[in-house]
Amino acid sequence: MLQRSVFFLSDRTGITAETLGHSLLTQFDGIEWKKRYAAFMDSAAKVQVIVEQINAAAEQEGKPPLVFSTLLDPVVLASVRRANCVLFDFFEICLGPLEAALQQPPVRTPGRSHVLRQDASYFRRIAAIQYALNSDDGANTRLLSDADVILVGVSRTGKTPVCVYLALQYGVLAANYPFTPEDMGVMQLPPLLQPMQKKLFGLTLSPARLQTIREERYPGSHYASFAECQRELQWQNELYRQCDIPSIDTTSVSIEEISASIIDRAHLERRQYGT
Amino acid sequence: MLQRSVFFLSDRTGITAETLGHSLLTQFDGIEWKKRYAAFMDSAAKVQVIVEQINAAAEQEGKPPLVFSTLLDPVVLASVRRANCVLFDFFEICLGPLEAALQQPPVRTPGRSHVLRQDASYFRRIAAIQYALNSDDGANTRLLSDADVILVGVSRTGKTPVCVYLALQYGVLAANYPFTPEDMGVMQLPPLLQPMQKKLFGLTLSPARLQTIREERYPGSHYASFAECQRELQWQNELYRQCDIPSIDTTSVSIEEISASIIDRAHLERRQYGT
Repeated sequence: MLQRSVFFLSDRTGITAETLGHSLLTQFDGIEWKKRYAAFMDSAAKVQVIVEQINAAAEQEGKPPLVFSTLLDPVVLASVRRANCVLFDFFEICLGPLEAALQQPPVRTPGRSHVLRQDASYFRRIAAIQYALNSDDGANTRLLSDADVILVGVSRTGKTPVCVYLALQYGVLAANYPFTPEDMGVMQLPPLLQPMQKKLFGLTLSPARLQTIREERYPGSHYASFAECQRELQWQNELYRQCDIPSIDTTSVSIEEISASIIDRAHLERRQYGT
Repeated sequence: MLQRSVFFLSDRTGITAETLGHSLLTQFDGIEWKKRYAAFMDSAAKVQVIVEQINAAAEQEGKPPLVFSTLLDPVVLASVRRANCVLFDFFEICLGPLEAALQQPPVRTPGRSHVLRQDASYFRRIAAIQYALNSDDGANTRLLSDADVILVGVSRTGKTPVCVYLALQYGVLAANYPFTPEDMGVMQLPPLLQPMQKKLFGLTLSPARLQTIREERYPGSHYASFAECQRELQWQNELYRQCDIPSIDTTSVSIEEISASIIDRAHLERRQYGT
């Protein structure tokens, strides 16, 4: 496959440059991207190193590399412009139309996307992360009543990473409760969850996928067998149906998509830092 | 302050639209943004609701709202174009220059930024999140030897959220060890950490900031007193100096910036999902 280098350059974290560039590159097939990241490009020395890497890549690949930049420092940017690359200057491309629309010039100050707000949102977000840790795997069931949402599902349906993402990205208090074989004796919600039915959101996935994930952890176990995965998922999905628990099939969906989908469908208030 | 509505529209998660739009808006001062998010805009009905909200906001504010869109569905996009707004069509603006540079047309398929890769990167990322949880607050010290990086600092310097972010965003195995008053009896690394000195990264912050954060948790306690915060930080920062532990002052820095800075300065390999 055609290989091409792409650089992500930023005055600060590089998060915007990465998100932007990654999103755009996924729209072009047939190219294997060799990605390099340079954040905190705040000195002539750092820029020089990157410029040399860019020129070397251009030489080696016989094509100028792509450079996604959220650089605002005019001096740093000028050095990059002199490199042998296709510069994709995010702010140059985007600030113009926005300036016209708002009839107001931008401040052009780096590092504003991820400044720390010394306000309640900071504590809310930290609290949400701590909450996700404390309430992981129903470990601290008395915490469940504080939850904005309680993710349920059999073991290894991916509840924990989604809870953590919901906390970190959206400041949502997300707890999780794993259904145990004991719960599966009867077709009803575990008593603990019954008063919180409205807060429940179910995760599910295909038996084959669950088997793969469980095999990673306990190879050859009964727990990881296809039959057991199928049995547990059948019980769980029937419970979702009978109890009207909204659910999402995570078989081929990323943590980001699952989380965004839950925010959307459960109408959860975003307490995202910065918004 | 001038208030204006801004909408973030996406066929899928809306993460790109948010990151992009937020980053741009921070470059314009003096406007209070009323933000509304609409992800998974995959039906005419959903679009209609948003279009009505956009038009209502335009009416109310006497100015067309801004709309940041990563929509790719031409039908959905067409409805939005008919609304009374300043449409900031991310892909229209950005795909053109990129298509020219790559001399290849984009596929224009939604939801490619956050697809799930059924590969090792999935398990690595999940494992990193689980690791951050298991090894939180030095809870599981035997895990420390597996760490890519071990964040150290006195209680409430913000180690946990940064570990979780490093795991989720970069797939890095980040452990943390909180210095205890017991550790502070002597000016040396706790024995447990001595063999891992090369992996340590220190967090610090101002005594006043630490006091504020501790007060949130234990108001009026000795633990939260300015004198105690100052004493612990003095010991910690002297230890960083003597043991050559790289450190970052988190007093006014966001979780994103701290994490990106650690990745950058500790030269950690990114195992970010999707990269």
